[in-house]
Amino acid sequence: MRDGLQSIATVLPTARKLAWIDAAYAAGQREIEVGSFVPARLLPQLADTAEVLAHAKTLPGLLASVLVPNFKGAERALECGADLMIVPLSASHAHSLANLRKTPDEVVAEVARIRAARDAAGSRTLIEGGVGTAFGCTLQGEVAEGEVLRLMQALLDAGADRVSLADTVGYADPASVRRLFEKARALVGERLWCAHFHDTRGMGLANVYAAWQAGITRFDACLAGIGGCPHAPGASGNVATEDLTFMLERMGVATGIDVAALLALRQRVAGGLAGETLHGALWQAGLPQNAASAALQAA
Amino acid sequence: MRDGLQSIATVLPTARKLAWIDAAYAAGQREIEVGSFVPARLLPQLADTAEVLAHAKTLPGLLASVLVPNFKGAERALECGADLMIVPLSASHAHSLANLRKTPDEVVAEVARIRAARDAAGSRTLIEGGVGTAFGCTLQGEVAEGEVLRLMQALLDAGADRVSLADTVGYADPASVRRLFEKARALVGERLWCAHFHDTRGMGLANVYAAWQAGITRFDACLAGIGGCPHAPGASGNVATEDLTFMLERMGVATGIDVAALLALRQRVAGGLAGETLHGALWQAGLPQNAASAALQAA
Repeated sequence: MRDGLQSIATVLPTARKLAWIDAAYAAGQREIEVGSFVPARLLPQLADTAEVLAHAKTLPGLLASVLVPNFKGAERALECGADLMIVPLSASHAHSLANLRKTPDEVVAEVARIRAARDAAGSRTLIEGGVGTAFGCTLQGEVAEGEVLRLMQALLDAGADRVSLADTVGYADPASVRRLFEKARALVGERLWCAHFHDTRGMGLANVYAAWQAGITRFDACLAGIGGCPHAPGASGNVATEDLTFMLERMGVATGIDVAALLALRQRVAGGLAGETLHGALWQAGLPQNAASAALQAA
Repeated sequence: MRDGLQSIATVLPTARKLAWIDAAYAAGQREIEVGSFVPARLLPQLADTAEVLAHAKTLPGLLASVLVPNFKGAERALECGADLMIVPLSASHAHSLANLRKTPDEVVAEVARIRAARDAAGSRTLIEGGVGTAFGCTLQGEVAEGEVLRLMQALLDAGADRVSLADTVGYADPASVRRLFEKARALVGERLWCAHFHDTRGMGLANVYAAWQAGITRFDACLAGIGGCPHAPGASGNVATEDLTFMLERMGVATGIDVAALLALRQRVAGGLAGETLHGALWQAGLPQNAASAALQAA
């Protein structure tokens, strides 16, 4: 939800967010990034993150995560008892300065402070270092694989429990995804937790498949493909959760998620986002209507 | 062009088709399916196929192909000297009867007649058997892999020079693509020529990547993702040529095609297709504007 809602003009009322979380949970989702602890003047769309998080925490077995752009945000995540806080780092120095006003290594140092605060508080909130612009950057151009791997390792060394790699601006292709994720897995194993792709140039699902082949089994996505990056001109659309789930189920990968329920939820969410550009393909074509997909629809 | 133009209401003037072919050729394309030899009353959009083919044949090194749904169409393709004629077969019996009014094995028998006519005429026109609904069917549901492989082999035994596999209705996923194409390649090797995917449920490029991993290096696509199948309700959109080419180039696969030129062509073609639903992602986001892509744009 977070990456979607922060990118659109609509400020979704809190009640609608809670209903979204409830329906996604009922459909089978067990990890949801519910918001971000940033100043409300910067992202009014996420000003109610504490309240949304409190609700998410009432759902048994749901891992409720939040984005925290800095130490101050992490303090709030710890106070509110988030299950997981995600600290974004941009492997592109130019993007890092523009987006976070810090160099990547300053973000690594911030993670060390966050880890110390977490430990001092005796909190069980997990820390994920999210390495963005891992496949290139609109500002800087190329981002060296070696630099991405170095920063990923530095985040873990600084105390992150896990890391993820993100194609923030839609520059990844399946070959580069497979190559980088295989190298990253070789370096840090299961602590490489998640892949985050945008569908900017139509390769979102191809990149998911490539990362899945490299051993990744967790993927970020947003219902209706909402989202993007305000600092990446032309970027549009996270991978759509419903399309991603359908692809994996169709491949025989059990996601635990009911695709038909997601499609119904998409329709309700879309109803509250009039005027926003939505994405995704499955909702237009619908689920396959025949014997081959009966098992899928019943699942 | 053929699969795109046959699916839309607009009847593109011949001059525009010739300009399209010229520009695609100038951009580096060296194989174009220019039309179909079907009765003009069934597909007025392709009534000028003979004229379009005659023009395409003037371009050095271009392989100009046509679809031929039956023996009569093949006779015209031979008369007109097509470089390649593609005979569609549906592995789904239900789809075959609805679409071609023949069983799959009757189509195989037709290919044997077409081969005999080709040889009798001393023609060099190649024959491709295109096995459609290879990953399932809206009418019949599941299509057994064994049946797809049997029919593919039968087409070659009947005299087809090469075969292709098509996901006519957008049911394929990357795992099924990889599995079936690997089995098919093991059976017939390089005579499995081409993969044809629709982007109905957003998996078009993921399926291309999966087939590429299985050794396939030729892919059908249509500029702006025009197309679909009139007998597959809800189906929409071939893979967009420009998106496919960009993905391959980005993966480091040399296509010989200038992506920027394709995008310019897309814009011109779209101008002549007002009111039609177009697809594709790259044209919206544009090519990456930085050092990393300078080589690509210059290529």
